[in-house]
Amino acid sequence: MTITVQDIINSLTEPVPKLEQTVDKLLIGRPDDAVAGIATVFMPTRQALEEAVALGANVVIAHEGPFYSHQDSFAATLEDDPVYQAKKTFLAESGLALFRLHDYIHRTQPDGITEGLVQALGWERHVLQHQPAASIVELPPMTAMEVASHVKERLGLAFVRLAGQPDMPCRRIGLLAGYRGGGPLVIPLFESEKLDLVLYGEGPEWETPEYVRDAVRQGHAKALIALGHAESESAGMRLLAERLQRQFPQLPVHFIPNEPLFRSV
Amino acid sequence: MTITVQDIINSLTEPVPKLEQTVDKLLIGRPDDAVAGIATVFMPTRQALEEAVALGANVVIAHEGPFYSHQDSFAATLEDDPVYQAKKTFLAESGLALFRLHDYIHRTQPDGITEGLVQALGWERHVLQHQPAASIVELPPMTAMEVASHVKERLGLAFVRLAGQPDMPCRRIGLLAGYRGGGPLVIPLFESEKLDLVLYGEGPEWETPEYVRDAVRQGHAKALIALGHAESESAGMRLLAERLQRQFPQLPVHFIPNEPLFRSV
Repeated sequence: MTITVQDIINSLTEPVPKLEQTVDKLLIGRPDDAVAGIATVFMPTRQALEEAVALGANVVIAHEGPFYSHQDSFAATLEDDPVYQAKKTFLAESGLALFRLHDYIHRTQPDGITEGLVQALGWERHVLQHQPAASIVELPPMTAMEVASHVKERLGLAFVRLAGQPDMPCRRIGLLAGYRGGGPLVIPLFESEKLDLVLYGEGPEWETPEYVRDAVRQGHAKALIALGHAESESAGMRLLAERLQRQFPQLPVHFIPNEPLFRSV
Repeated sequence: MTITVQDIINSLTEPVPKLEQTVDKLLIGRPDDAVAGIATVFMPTRQALEEAVALGANVVIAHEGPFYSHQDSFAATLEDDPVYQAKKTFLAESGLALFRLHDYIHRTQPDGITEGLVQALGWERHVLQHQPAASIVELPPMTAMEVASHVKERLGLAFVRLAGQPDMPCRRIGLLAGYRGGGPLVIPLFESEKLDLVLYGEGPEWETPEYVRDAVRQGHAKALIALGHAESESAGMRLLAERLQRQFPQLPVHFIPNEPLFRSV
């Protein structure tokens, strides 16, 4: 039986009540096309799209959009840009279908992206609570530096950024994947969840990290690890590939990791 | 003759037409108080405020606010937070006046914060154009890695984050201090200003860095250096201290550098 692009989309969106406002959609391709293979990826970079083609996949499921903005509409401002033009042409000629899966996977319970991060860190047994935007874990005591080492090793990262106190023992940790590092979300968690350490993807530098800095100066042992946005969400897209493979055993399903975006020099 | 807090505020705001909407204001203190000494700082951390007191300054001019948000109103949500409470009590008991200088210094021509960064980098002679949010410089050819080394040395940084191609020669560089790394602002500059390299404080990871990544994959030699928000704006507050010292020679004027917010581990 032929599996269509729409069949895949249905399997991705059905676990969640229909969202009226969402960035998730079939950006390129036709719902009725037959699926030969699937690739999941955090960021549909030019390189990742080339790899999908090389793997024989004709459907890419990407967490972020291809054109450098959360909003699809930004692409209209890039019509004369050579980087945009070359990527758009490549996509059109590749025959790939590209589905953006952002809001639906974040709204599963638990959040499918955070769940991937928790699994990649080996912390499933330690989860106390999955909140909509954060998961609270309680670990045997480790210093913030030891947590950083663990995270780097498990996620294969060359570096993370650490603020606050590196050498105090941490037990209660808040995990926030993606761009969830903002003060209004994270700062209240330190107190309400009695967190020692927060681990987030990305957030404004003048908000949560500065709170942590003042907390330490005022005698509260707190720390913060900024993983990077991609670094915090890629594992969720890897987990998705595993789930799709079980759901569609007749199709090849790949996860394509992105290369590191930044190096620390 | 006594110099008042209001005299200092006037000297800071008079170079720019009055702003109707601004975060700049006297957050703590009275306009009529006599000034004993001034300290400028990027972030009024608990530590920096203690240093101001120790230096005998009673007026602090800070680029960012003391309570972990661009908007003053966020503090109202922190009433029960012990870190907020301790800092607020310290501030009240310190006798310090605290003036936030953000919008006015960014709206001088050229932008006083960017001007400080350009001077700190020793690139005054190389500026082609000061735009409102970016300055364009043209340097003798250096690789992006060499630029990174120069920047680290001149600004005293332990690390910067580099995206794109590290080893291509760069001539034309866009400099954007602070949170000006967003795609809508930076991406068009690569093309309109024929930039090889952008150097910014902070910005969303999925926007400009991903554009640079695709550009490189598609054969355009481009690179990006993310300095950090504080790292890109502190020099502007140092330059301000020098200017205030010339303007008010009878007062002691200090610049208080912030410790690094993050370490790369």
